[in-house]
Amino acid sequence: MKCSVFIATSADGYIATLDGGVDWLHTAGNLDADISNDDMGFHDFMGSVDCMIMGRKCMEMISQMNLTPEQWPYGKMPIYVLSKTLKDAPYNLQGKVEMYSGEIKLLIRTFEEKGYKSAYIDGGFTITSFLNHGLINEIILTKIPVLLGEGTPLFGNVNKKLKLEKTEVKSFKNDFYQVKYGVNYL
Amino acid sequence: MKCSVFIATSADGYIATLDGGVDWLHTAGNLDADISNDDMGFHDFMGSVDCMIMGRKCMEMISQMNLTPEQWPYGKMPIYVLSKTLKDAPYNLQGKVEMYSGEIKLLIRTFEEKGYKSAYIDGGFTITSFLNHGLINEIILTKIPVLLGEGTPLFGNVNKKLKLEKTEVKSFKNDFYQVKYGVNYL
Repeated sequence: MKCSVFIATSADGYIATLDGGVDWLHTAGNLDADISNDDMGFHDFMGSVDCMIMGRKCMEMISQMNLTPEQWPYGKMPIYVLSKTLKDAPYNLQGKVEMYSGEIKLLIRTFEEKGYKSAYIDGGFTITSFLNHGLINEIILTKIPVLLGEGTPLFGNVNKKLKLEKTEVKSFKNDFYQVKYGVNYL
Repeated sequence: MKCSVFIATSADGYIATLDGGVDWLHTAGNLDADISNDDMGFHDFMGSVDCMIMGRKCMEMISQMNLTPEQWPYGKMPIYVLSKTLKDAPYNLQGKVEMYSGEIKLLIRTFEEKGYKSAYIDGGFTITSFLNHGLINEIILTKIPVLLGEGTPLFGNVNKKLKLEKTEVKSFKNDFYQVKYGVNYL
């Protein structure tokens, strides 16, 4: 199964401030630029995946957003949340996500047996873990033009030897840019 | 005086491995790609600066390279090396660099009084220090398609509020890419 990352980081590589905050995402960049018709590739990316695996913190952040059904960005995709400790999803995500405490490779096999072909992998710890298992095939990073100085880094201690390749970059009118990589494990 | 950064980092934002190594710079990317005619903007950048300020570690790395006069990439530009402890430059850099232990803003003023207009600022600690003084105006990052997992980050604890702006990106045949930012202090 193809596994892809689509995530935003600060220019210095953080996905959140130390207290988990992501408000800086909404105040960064050129706010005068009209990007109302540009979702920076999210719709196209969502069309390329058919299931999702995220970490617990990522789920908790989504839960705190208290999204209405109209705001829910993940359609009807099955979503598994990795957690060794949490048994039940928060009340407002029940029926939308499944908790999973088992092995990652077993989860991938289960998805494959059900016919899923392309997974959206989200959350810093989960992404690093997938990289160390040699499972991420594609990384799309939206880089936000701000330096946080400290926070939760996107990439933790990746110890798998790999090359990023087929680099593609594009910038947006609001001073954000996006880089897309394939991943080649050595 | 305009102050510019031109530096390479891994995709996860490190300028060196924990032991100071930069060998990964030479093995990263698509080694089959012919980039013999592409210096990824270094010559043009060098034409845009007339003096240089770097940190001690950066100087020591250059010293260890034992460059011949033909390999020396900085021309006849004056180079000041910031260090609170080291009084003398290494033997092979004497006559090429000046040690400086004073205040950064005073050094900038000295350069300005001598008529210099555009400084190349190099070294992670020095760059962070200049950012925190609100002195960096332009950042050109060459991003190497590799994840180091750990190392010396380019950006340390930047505590100055700023926006990166006028984002420009370009990719190269060897899967490197480069992003250029202006810096707007808030």
